[in-house]
Amino acid sequence: MGFDAIEVITVKRDRGELSTAQIDWVIGAYTRGEVADEQMSALLMAILLNGMNRREIADWTQAMIRSGERMDWSSLDRPTADKHSTGGVGDKITLPLAPLVAACGAYVPQLSGRGLGHTGGTLDKLESIPGWRASLSNDEMLAVIRSAGAVVCAAGAGLAPADKKLYALRDVTGTVESIPLIASSIMSKKIAEGTGSLVLDVKAGSGAFMKNVDDARELARTMVELGTDAGVRTVALLTAMDRPLGLKVGNALEVEEAVEVLAGGGPADVVELTVRLAREMLEAAAVPGAGDPEEALKDGSAMDAWRRMIVAQGGDPDAPLPTAAESAVVVAPASGTLRTLDALKVGVAAWRLGAGRARKEDPVSAGAGIVLHAKPGETVRAGAPLMTLYADEAARFDRALQALEGAYEIGEDGLDLLPLVIDRLTA
Amino acid sequence: MGFDAIEVITVKRDRGELSTAQIDWVIGAYTRGEVADEQMSALLMAILLNGMNRREIADWTQAMIRSGERMDWSSLDRPTADKHSTGGVGDKITLPLAPLVAACGAYVPQLSGRGLGHTGGTLDKLESIPGWRASLSNDEMLAVIRSAGAVVCAAGAGLAPADKKLYALRDVTGTVESIPLIASSIMSKKIAEGTGSLVLDVKAGSGAFMKNVDDARELARTMVELGTDAGVRTVALLTAMDRPLGLKVGNALEVEEAVEVLAGGGPADVVELTVRLAREMLEAAAVPGAGDPEEALKDGSAMDAWRRMIVAQGGDPDAPLPTAAESAVVVAPASGTLRTLDALKVGVAAWRLGAGRARKEDPVSAGAGIVLHAKPGETVRAGAPLMTLYADEAARFDRALQALEGAYEIGEDGLDLLPLVIDRLTA
Repeated sequence: MGFDAIEVITVKRDRGELSTAQIDWVIGAYTRGEVADEQMSALLMAILLNGMNRREIADWTQAMIRSGERMDWSSLDRPTADKHSTGGVGDKITLPLAPLVAACGAYVPQLSGRGLGHTGGTLDKLESIPGWRASLSNDEMLAVIRSAGAVVCAAGAGLAPADKKLYALRDVTGTVESIPLIASSIMSKKIAEGTGSLVLDVKAGSGAFMKNVDDARELARTMVELGTDAGVRTVALLTAMDRPLGLKVGNALEVEEAVEVLAGGGPADVVELTVRLAREMLEAAAVPGAGDPEEALKDGSAMDAWRRMIVAQGGDPDAPLPTAAESAVVVAPASGTLRTLDALKVGVAAWRLGAGRARKEDPVSAGAGIVLHAKPGETVRAGAPLMTLYADEAARFDRALQALEGAYEIGEDGLDLLPLVIDRLTA
Repeated sequence: MGFDAIEVITVKRDRGELSTAQIDWVIGAYTRGEVADEQMSALLMAILLNGMNRREIADWTQAMIRSGERMDWSSLDRPTADKHSTGGVGDKITLPLAPLVAACGAYVPQLSGRGLGHTGGTLDKLESIPGWRASLSNDEMLAVIRSAGAVVCAAGAGLAPADKKLYALRDVTGTVESIPLIASSIMSKKIAEGTGSLVLDVKAGSGAFMKNVDDARELARTMVELGTDAGVRTVALLTAMDRPLGLKVGNALEVEEAVEVLAGGGPADVVELTVRLAREMLEAAAVPGAGDPEEALKDGSAMDAWRRMIVAQGGDPDAPLPTAAESAVVVAPASGTLRTLDALKVGVAAWRLGAGRARKEDPVSAGAGIVLHAKPGETVRAGAPLMTLYADEAARFDRALQALEGAYEIGEDGLDLLPLVIDRLTA
């Protein structure tokens, strides 16, 4: 089927609807290098500005899936469940969640990514565990999932290569912020991963990709439609990212907090969201005789699954985690109620401390990050520690403290926070 | 001044206004190869869809002018006048106009282009004159203008190189059809040519770039503003391109018709538009004691200027023009009034006969084209010749005749044609 790139661009430029054949052709031809980067970026800008309808987004996603391999878990004897978060500050939920859901009876094949900018990446966090390996072959993945019930690893290069090439192009052409393109990018990888069910954690607030709830809801709706159209049972929760999740932000620090949760402790919001997402995953996967997640945190079975998962990927769950050489304490300037704690500012501060990276090829510090001593709604005393910053070099504190300017408010008035779980969307 | 390409793209994507410094930077950096094609094409699509205001368009134009050299005619002892047509079918007006205006007392430095698609190019037409050369150095241009009063030649590579690079990119990315980009492309070259005054012939109708009068008026208004803002006295005429101009369409055929006009004859519409544009140019250039164009066509002084101009560029004005080997006559299928004659269809037919090119590097036939035997409004008899097609190979007639399907209507009803001169715009 031969089309012309200019013809396809012109349809979308003039607010027309792209046909299934046009979308198939342009994604395939771009992946093969027959449509040039400058043509695809003009098309992407036209899509960003003029949109795509539900059918076009589904076709775009399917065309990206067809550009590569599709994984197959049909040899497993239990249902598979997967979760995807759009990313936030202190969002370590995947770490306790994957072994927890495994302990309750589902298989959890979780392909994850690395952090960029102020949001952390699950693989960066797990790599702070001595010996732990992110890259597995498909056979190794299957072996880990059979022995531990869950696997968290890097997506191979064969999965949706069109998406990889498109994402790199969008990144340098100002065409990232398009809900149809974001939704199809996420869902092409998740559908190609071959999961039977998917729970989406779509975050809204300053620390999230979607700053406001309406945009987050639109993204969630689009992804639920895409999953449903592709035959994957898909549910989305809209959750709060106006303040950080939990009390620890940073790679090893977040592993530490995840282990606290798996040991039956941890901050209330992390526990609540982990349990809620676990129940959604077990329900979406329709696991027969599924265990109770709260029970699995208390009885140690989730922790057992975690230890098996870490060991199966070469990690030592008992080895001490790396720590940063330097620390600095931020004290409360006044007494009162901590009214706000801006997720974006805390995320940028942690990034500047060394926990995050500006470019894909940059290294991250395992020990750097922030420990919060109070969360919004709690009472603080003037002079008492509000947060502790950690970095490998003390020289990093200045710019991190600059990022924290205006990050919190202490006062008497009522709180204006988003509910932890804002909404739930299904097909 | 360092900007980031993504930052500039994002401003326009989000319907913001680009600053002068951002426009300067992005045009300069793109010309130097520091902004990539895929970034510029995303910006161009955002400009096409979200527009630019008067200040942004002026800055964009000035930045393109600054990317190259600017010509200087201040050593000449008479005012300079220039004309630009947005192009059409049978539009050979530059050929009689440049020597006519020279004969009336202005200097006419006319940098012209080649044809692409269904519209012809002035240089292609003149190149059908044996010996005539389109490429001149700046010194040669000055010598021709001093001896003949007018020069029609190819723009050198040094003039607005940013525009050349941008035009090639727009051509393959579906970003040609943007009034701010079209206007700044035309005006950057015209302003860089250093003319003191400029008359624009903006065509509207099927055979023009702008199919409807409103778009043509918007383009004309934008270009008049740009010229005025750059200190060039600029006037625009909106003229009809719903039917071809004159009776001859094709390279040598149009030279032939131009010479008829210079000899005091020629079709009424070509004469009327040539004289009208000549008066506008003489007025805009404020030529002291300017001659009368109608007089100069009658008394042979325009023809003398034409002959000097052709000779000065190596051409032989007395040499026979090339003719096509094959011809075919289209006869009227009925008797009545020729109500319409579609400019686009006639233009496409002439192109398929060999008069035009599909790609910049294609050759054109000098002799190919179409001679009309009737114009809209005239009475035709069933079986009488309506037009004669000329081509170097008879095999070309089939596809040309296909292009002419539905190109004309013969009936009794009134005419629905645009007036030859639709409107006149000034600052």
